[in-house]
Amino acid sequence: MSAKLKTAVLGATGYSGFELTRLLLRHPRLEKPVLLSRQSDPDANSNLADAYPTLSGNGSYPLKPFSWPSLTQQGVELLFLATPHEASRSLVPQAIAQGLRVIDLSGAWRLKQAHNRAVYKFEDADAVTAAELTDKAVYGLPELCSDQIPDAALVANPGCYATSVILALAPLIKAGVVDRERGIISDSKSGVSGAGKEANARTHFVSVADNLSAYSVFGHRHVGEMLEQLKLAADELIFTPHLLPIPRGILSTIYAHLSREMKPAEIESIYRDFYAGRQWVRVFATPKLPQIQFSLHTNYCDLGFCLAEDGRRLVLVSCVDNLLKGAAGQAVQNMNLMYGWNEEEGLQ
Amino acid sequence: MSAKLKTAVLGATGYSGFELTRLLLRHPRLEKPVLLSRQSDPDANSNLADAYPTLSGNGSYPLKPFSWPSLTQQGVELLFLATPHEASRSLVPQAIAQGLRVIDLSGAWRLKQAHNRAVYKFEDADAVTAAELTDKAVYGLPELCSDQIPDAALVANPGCYATSVILALAPLIKAGVVDRERGIISDSKSGVSGAGKEANARTHFVSVADNLSAYSVFGHRHVGEMLEQLKLAADELIFTPHLLPIPRGILSTIYAHLSREMKPAEIESIYRDFYAGRQWVRVFATPKLPQIQFSLHTNYCDLGFCLAEDGRRLVLVSCVDNLLKGAAGQAVQNMNLMYGWNEEEGLQ
Amino acid sequence: MSAKLKTAVLGATGYSGFELTRLLLRHPRLEKPVLLSRQSDPDANSNLADAYPTLSGNGSYPLKPFSWPSLTQQGVELLFLATPHEASRSLVPQAIAQGLRVIDLSGAWRLKQAHNRAVYKFEDADAVTAAELTDKAVYGLPELCSDQIPDAALVANPGCYATSVILALAPLIKAGVVDRERGIISDSKSGVSGAGKEANARTHFVSVADNLSAYSVFGHRHVGEMLEQLKLAADELIFTPHLLPIPRGILSTIYAHLSREMKPAEIESIYRDFYAGRQWVRVFATPKLPQIQFSLHTNYCDLGFCLAEDGRRLVLVSCVDNLLKGAAGQAVQNMNLMYGWNEEEGLQ
Amino acid sequence: MSAKLKTAVLGATGYSGFELTRLLLRHPRLEKPVLLSRQSDPDANSNLADAYPTLSGNGSYPLKPFSWPSLTQQGVELLFLATPHEASRSLVPQAIAQGLRVIDLSGAWRLKQAHNRAVYKFEDADAVTAAELTDKAVYGLPELCSDQIPDAALVANPGCYATSVILALAPLIKAGVVDRERGIISDSKSGVSGAGKEANARTHFVSVADNLSAYSVFGHRHVGEMLEQLKLAADELIFTPHLLPIPRGILSTIYAHLSREMKPAEIESIYRDFYAGRQWVRVFATPKLPQIQFSLHTNYCDLGFCLAEDGRRLVLVSCVDNLLKGAAGQAVQNMNLMYGWNEEEGLQ
Repeated sequence: MSAKLKTAVLGATGYSGFELTRLLLRHPRLEKPVLLSRQSDPDANSNLADAYPTLSGNGSYPLKPFSWPSLTQQGVELLFLATPHEASRSLVPQAIAQGLRVIDLSGAWRLKQAHNRAVYKFEDADAVTAAELTDKAVYGLPELCSDQIPDAALVANPGCYATSVILALAPLIKAGVVDRERGIISDSKSGVSGAGKEANARTHFVSVADNLSAYSVFGHRHVGEMLEQLKLAADELIFTPHLLPIPRGILSTIYAHLSREMKPAEIESIYRDFYAGRQWVRVFATPKLPQIQFSLHTNYCDLGFCLAEDGRRLVLVSCVDNLLKGAAGQAVQNMNLMYGWNEEEGLQ
Repeated sequence: MSAKLKTAVLGATGYSGFELTRLLLRHPRLEKPVLLSRQSDPDANSNLADAYPTLSGNGSYPLKPFSWPSLTQQGVELLFLATPHEASRSLVPQAIAQGLRVIDLSGAWRLKQAHNRAVYKFEDADAVTAAELTDKAVYGLPELCSDQIPDAALVANPGCYATSVILALAPLIKAGVVDRERGIISDSKSGVSGAGKEANARTHFVSVADNLSAYSVFGHRHVGEMLEQLKLAADELIFTPHLLPIPRGILSTIYAHLSREMKPAEIESIYRDFYAGRQWVRVFATPKLPQIQFSLHTNYCDLGFCLAEDGRRLVLVSCVDNLLKGAAGQAVQNMNLMYGWNEEEGLQ
Repeated sequence: MSAKLKTAVLGATGYSGFELTRLLLRHPRLEKPVLLSRQSDPDANSNLADAYPTLSGNGSYPLKPFSWPSLTQQGVELLFLATPHEASRSLVPQAIAQGLRVIDLSGAWRLKQAHNRAVYKFEDADAVTAAELTDKAVYGLPELCSDQIPDAALVANPGCYATSVILALAPLIKAGVVDRERGIISDSKSGVSGAGKEANARTHFVSVADNLSAYSVFGHRHVGEMLEQLKLAADELIFTPHLLPIPRGILSTIYAHLSREMKPAEIESIYRDFYAGRQWVRVFATPKLPQIQFSLHTNYCDLGFCLAEDGRRLVLVSCVDNLLKGAAGQAVQNMNLMYGWNEEEGLQ
Repeated sequence: MSAKLKTAVLGATGYSGFELTRLLLRHPRLEKPVLLSRQSDPDANSNLADAYPTLSGNGSYPLKPFSWPSLTQQGVELLFLATPHEASRSLVPQAIAQGLRVIDLSGAWRLKQAHNRAVYKFEDADAVTAAELTDKAVYGLPELCSDQIPDAALVANPGCYATSVILALAPLIKAGVVDRERGIISDSKSGVSGAGKEANARTHFVSVADNLSAYSVFGHRHVGEMLEQLKLAADELIFTPHLLPIPRGILSTIYAHLSREMKPAEIESIYRDFYAGRQWVRVFATPKLPQIQFSLHTNYCDLGFCLAEDGRRLVLVSCVDNLLKGAAGQAVQNMNLMYGWNEEEGLQ
């Protein structure tokens, strides 16, 4: 085996960053990742095992001060950004300029179209570079974009909701069997880690427990990714996220009309063909449906469906662990592709 | 005040039956209800406070053996059935023959159309009487059927999911502003008490916690009620229930297309007008949406909506406590109407 | 019935303050309570139904600016303080000086002994008045102090943990059958509302769900109340609180050695005699034990016990709803005693 | 590397059996384990991935009919029993007679003393053999019994509660610093998977959620293990288990008096020395305490403590994942010792 890859993680104390760090720590192709924090971070100069005692007992995980020179001096080749999108937007141009490859877990570089990016209100210091990088950035959904990922300098790791919705719909839309004019609906439900580690009234235990709530109706940031990747018009998709009283996991219930009458077996074939050879998507035999528990703590996206007797009205169910296939696991999968390794490495 | 009404409950040990009993015990117009069990019931001859110790300390709640003569000897006028639908189907004809009025919480008498009833597979001993009673039974959704309930001998208390969906859609459908051909979708989520008190693999704590699952896609029993009450064709509504990791509460996220472009204020007006004077429906000012917690332990159905910028695509959110407005509270509301009392009595 | 009492609540937006407000709103002896907030409060000038939409639909609940003149002008006689202990410590002397009676839900006035108060680090502006009020303050545990409460100007409403522990131990300690030198242990577990409404890393849903943690070992503020009310020396009691993944409810498992061999029936008698005529304590017949669910949403303190075969080693279990018998319900019970009403009023 | 070991699991569909199977499937020293069920089992002839869809997508996991000849024909050397204790009690003598080594996860062979075993009410077909095997059986707590485990033919894998309590107390008791006459108390709390997969009123979601309950006070089966391993008299330990509203995890809060005044550092030293070189016990630096989340999905037993200012009264906190260090993980740890492998293999 050749020399191990040197990676670094900025933002390891967030939920996704921590999950990513755990994966990198046991990935057979990597040296122990460099964990970084910026001076302004609340966790600067701390130890990751203090924030996550589950990690203790296996060595030390100091968060080192972030600086470009130290990164290159340490020979880091690949930088993972588990930072807020504003930070990622300003850090990525610098990283690329340093010759680093980057996998960014934020929404900063996922969107090609300006009107979709508008919701993020980016303020780019250097608009030309930002535009170039926006062009170069590869959307890191391996099951759809595996041809571009190997050579990418910048991989924009997809949003958790977007992953669950795009993987459920792509086979049918690409097969041309969805009546897009009738409208597609994704009613999605996520565990609380998807809302981030910030403590606020919304993430307080008493607000979430024994509850369910819809939010960001007609206005969630992940919709742009879904539209771009699925090549849908804005009025062809309604996406409604809900906050579940569970720590992690996403279930999307998706409603579509088929453009012609079909049999369940035909649909199942489309999915099986589309995901043939793709380890991290599991297609359930109809009418069996995935549940959140089945994909928790795995990198799987689980897909199932039920077709009405009319052969037209379709209900899809898609589950992912928002911290794995919806974030950190997918980032590792992207890294595997970028370095020519087996897509499963470090993820079993 | 006139003499207090004598009521009886058969099935007080189930979740709905117990909730109902609690409401009846504190209702100012009632004598202490007679609690009944059949010999075949697992709880026969026990005390309700043994099954629900929360009730203890306030007197004794023996379950007495059920028999028609004892009911009439005790002067019971109104019988609540919180029994499985098979039991209700066979008991109601006898109760009516005895001159009792009945509020049945099961699905036995809710459906007028044979093809909708088929899913229940009723085996009526006396088909003629069953048909007559099916005709006479009044669907006990006070906000829609309050003209018929006062004189009803038999009130068929609505299903919990059905309550949440019908109350959300009725104002718009009756106003003729829904494009029914585009299809209506209700993505509904319920707490576990909705699945009943039976212990099985599905209701085991470990199966439900940290999970979410869809079930009975294209095949749930409550769909017939929705179709009949909303006068929809079978292919105009998709209803997908999900099991939430919470003890009680329902949230339905409902998707409809309007038949013409509308303003949010116009829609809000339709709701406010429709439910004017109806204490137990709360209309939220858009874009505020109800959450399950808001209606828990109340008899409210909470309704809210968001309208897309195109003025056509509508997302409705409807919440009820499945044991109250979705079952026992609604039964009390029906009783209030049947006896000419204020609809709110015993429910605050 | 005589004129209704005028009350006010300062701090209605906290969990206890809100629960209290709900109780006061439906109490038959009261006018609608005046809801107050200070300018510095985050919820100043808002409406209680905005913070707690469950309240909406039944009228308006504006939070009015707090000032002493407006209180007296409105004829308020009784002030409930659901404020942090520092605020209560400075507000109570002013309230008493205005001639108001006060029920304070904080820890500000519960402790008679300076060394027990030390943990709160009070900084009294007027030490003499503070000392006088400390003397005059009545500990508001009705089952122990009902002789003093009726005439109290200032009732210090007990802590939630303290309520569960004191009510469980008082009968045996007062009967002189506990071997105090062997040490008493209370291993107590509370739902998250006991930690207050502040959003922080500890109350984040992801920190609490699927978890249990002990905290404040040998250092919790409620210990002083337990020692003073039970007349125990500091080394005779160990109290260990734990944070449960539930919204509300407390269960204390208490361990004591009896000073002589006893029979279960003898112990049960001691409890039944001690709490004879006390509506809000329920004694379970051994070996039945209370569970948190049984007392949720009630004002009961539930008590049960198991005695080892040696007739010496005793395990007590005590449950309360921390927001009701552990806070707001007990405050109403205290008000009932202060005004000569039935102890149950407004609490059923 | 030498040839891989052939193992079999009987009872793979229970919670512990499934967790064990997952560990064995990825253990580098093993062939794919043979999964067995008896004809009388509800899951006979099914596929493990049907009961646990999380497993699907990685091959097939048929449950094969159990018979001794087929086991030996397939070259199985080590048999894991994840069966009820009655089944284990009758199967183990036959397995040993066939020359198999056995790791039994039930309580069948853990207890040496007849009076401790009485609670299980075993009915041994061959009392002589049973007595011999009882003698030969090694209690499989590697941190205490690692000298006997390597050569054991029969390892009795400890109970989950027992693991948490024994590992917390052994260092201090063996150091002779616990005043046993003052009594030791373990107030333990477990997630619901500890109660097994059987659906009953106690494991119904609605019974467990928003609740906490104590059970089996003075009568839990795991007490005998604690007494025997810690060499305590029956009246020296009180053990009170509680059912937590979480799927998995145990936290034991343990109270002991020291026989002499000690410093925290001294106690910490005793723990660090005792567990030096033991990978799967983590000692927290006082006053930091473990929480259930920290050890979930790991094989760690986490230990922490707080000492009162008097240097005598000690509160210990011990956490394990009941399905890993409390069952399946410990079984793998035992296997590693039995075959001379590193204790960590297959457990990271």
